[in-house]
Amino acid sequence: MVMKKLINKTEDIVKELNAGLVKSHSDLIQLAAPDIIIRKKPKEKGKVWIVFGQGAGHEPAYNGMIGYGMHDIEVPGGIFACAGGDRIYEGIRIAWEGSGNTPVLLLIANHEGDVMNAGLAMEMARDDGIDVESVLLYDDIASAPKGQESKRRGMAGMTFSFKVAGAMAEEGNSRDEIIKRVEAVTANTRTLAVALKPCTIPTTGQQLFALADDELLIGPGVHGEPGPEGPLKMMSANEVIDRVADKVITDGEFNSGDEVLVLINGSGSTTLMEMFILYNRLYEILASKNINPFNPLIGNYITTQEMAGFSLSLCKADSEVKRLWAAPANTPYFKIIGDS
Amino acid sequence: MVMKKLINKTEDIVKELNAGLVKSHSDLIQLAAPDIIIRKKPKEKGKVWIVFGQGAGHEPAYNGMIGYGMHDIEVPGGIFACAGGDRIYEGIRIAWEGSGNTPVLLLIANHEGDVMNAGLAMEMARDDGIDVESVLLYDDIASAPKGQESKRRGMAGMTFSFKVAGAMAEEGNSRDEIIKRVEAVTANTRTLAVALKPCTIPTTGQQLFALADDELLIGPGVHGEPGPEGPLKMMSANEVIDRVADKVITDGEFNSGDEVLVLINGSGSTTLMEMFILYNRLYEILASKNINPFNPLIGNYITTQEMAGFSLSLCKADSEVKRLWAAPANTPYFKIIGDS
Repeated sequence: MVMKKLINKTEDIVKELNAGLVKSHSDLIQLAAPDIIIRKKPKEKGKVWIVFGQGAGHEPAYNGMIGYGMHDIEVPGGIFACAGGDRIYEGIRIAWEGSGNTPVLLLIANHEGDVMNAGLAMEMARDDGIDVESVLLYDDIASAPKGQESKRRGMAGMTFSFKVAGAMAEEGNSRDEIIKRVEAVTANTRTLAVALKPCTIPTTGQQLFALADDELLIGPGVHGEPGPEGPLKMMSANEVIDRVADKVITDGEFNSGDEVLVLINGSGSTTLMEMFILYNRLYEILASKNINPFNPLIGNYITTQEMAGFSLSLCKADSEVKRLWAAPANTPYFKIIGDS
Repeated sequence: MVMKKLINKTEDIVKELNAGLVKSHSDLIQLAAPDIIIRKKPKEKGKVWIVFGQGAGHEPAYNGMIGYGMHDIEVPGGIFACAGGDRIYEGIRIAWEGSGNTPVLLLIANHEGDVMNAGLAMEMARDDGIDVESVLLYDDIASAPKGQESKRRGMAGMTFSFKVAGAMAEEGNSRDEIIKRVEAVTANTRTLAVALKPCTIPTTGQQLFALADDELLIGPGVHGEPGPEGPLKMMSANEVIDRVADKVITDGEFNSGDEVLVLINGSGSTTLMEMFILYNRLYEILASKNINPFNPLIGNYITTQEMAGFSLSLCKADSEVKRLWAAPANTPYFKIIGDS
């Protein structure tokens, strides 16, 4: 069967997508090396540079969030496959040199390949005398039980940690201060995803998973990893978000009076129309519990190709985290304007 | 068959999506009346307020582009159906009163229902002594032959006209000056779309059109209107954009030395990965003709639910149009930051 994706040779997908991203946003980003993306206007020397390595195929994701107020260097890997340790090492080295030998912060999404390659990269960097530390990001409540939070997968809720880290680095905080707060933000973040339709994996033409025409999944990962429960019968928008919000709020122990950052992240082909309908109900759910959403983010940020579905992320936020979430950012696909 | 969309009752879709949009961006927009959306912080009195009425189901589209530097009041209609004349009239009246009786500008997408309802609304407004004029926006080269440009449908290329109108109004230009330049921008804009897969119409559960598993369409409208040629066999990304760019460049008579605004607009489920691959090739095509892209915009801006496909829009731009395209904008789904 012919794959209905606008690609050329499968082996050229990542190279061409990275090139197209950089060419279309040449005011903000550039290639530092083959398939390593860096800000066009680098952060000042002496401030902490933030590096991230991830798989491709989730666009815009974090290579669309390089720039002022977010991160500095992105090392994209293959489709749904983390960049190799030697390439992440290269990103760390560029950050170390660009920042004038300022301690480097590597953020790591909690997936097996990402953790392994990040570890390898840090080892290589330290062998070179580079000062690099990392924070492990996790948020997916479907992937490990309560009490084992740090075993959970990194999902769209990582966006909160990226934003807070980026804003703090921009403001000149030390790496230790950034690490401490990002660990707290991660500990306060919960995500749960829903999938309605699988996607086609662009390198193979295969479907990511199978799902009946009248079923949905609660708890899949961003690469179609299964959740803890089997398929459920299709539900209305309100029934879905009622169920998802209940699980997220319960697991995160969000309580009356809490203020929360909110992300409804589309996984690819779910329309903004649907996401607004979900948010309309979520707003009521939160209000009924006296939980107050702050500057919600609704859209396709970390996708799984054209998978249909979404994830809900909440993060308990104090006034400082709220301030950092609202601080200016100027990246290709994540912009925050201070005043208007 | 169960429809895999996250909705509740079909008759509540538009009300709930508008409510969710406004609740999730309450810093920027608010409801001025049921299903009429207005800026949170209104434009100053004495400046030209810009009103637009359109169908829903294309989110974010232009109700995601209300705010500083874009437009002032949006009157969304039903799914794929323009708002009624009486409701567009209501939007015009709110603009007239809010602006301190400053001449109002109504922008109209060239679709039969939109034109009819806009005409009705302007008649009602003028009967009330309101000073309102309009500009008809058209860009789709598939919908009428060269030489009959003003019979063409309004497609994603309208974004250029909206941005220029919004920036000029913000800077305090008169309505006549805005109309003159927006007419010129529209005359200089060309769009051509490609569809790979249809979408499900959320109000009926029906497919928008039929297309074989190995075929694509060149020239469909944003509601699945047929183009001038029948389905073609599936092609590579480069083959598709080569063909589309050639038609757009030829029709628009874009020449060596021209500077062009560029929009690659995803129609719903086509990934940014694919759009970057398309732009990577487009960049080469334009370079080979010595046509210079300026601040390209790549993403899902005017969608047709989860239809797979994209459109390419180009607009010949002089230095003033470039300046207006790059001027600051702060809306829910279209933000331009002046400096970074």
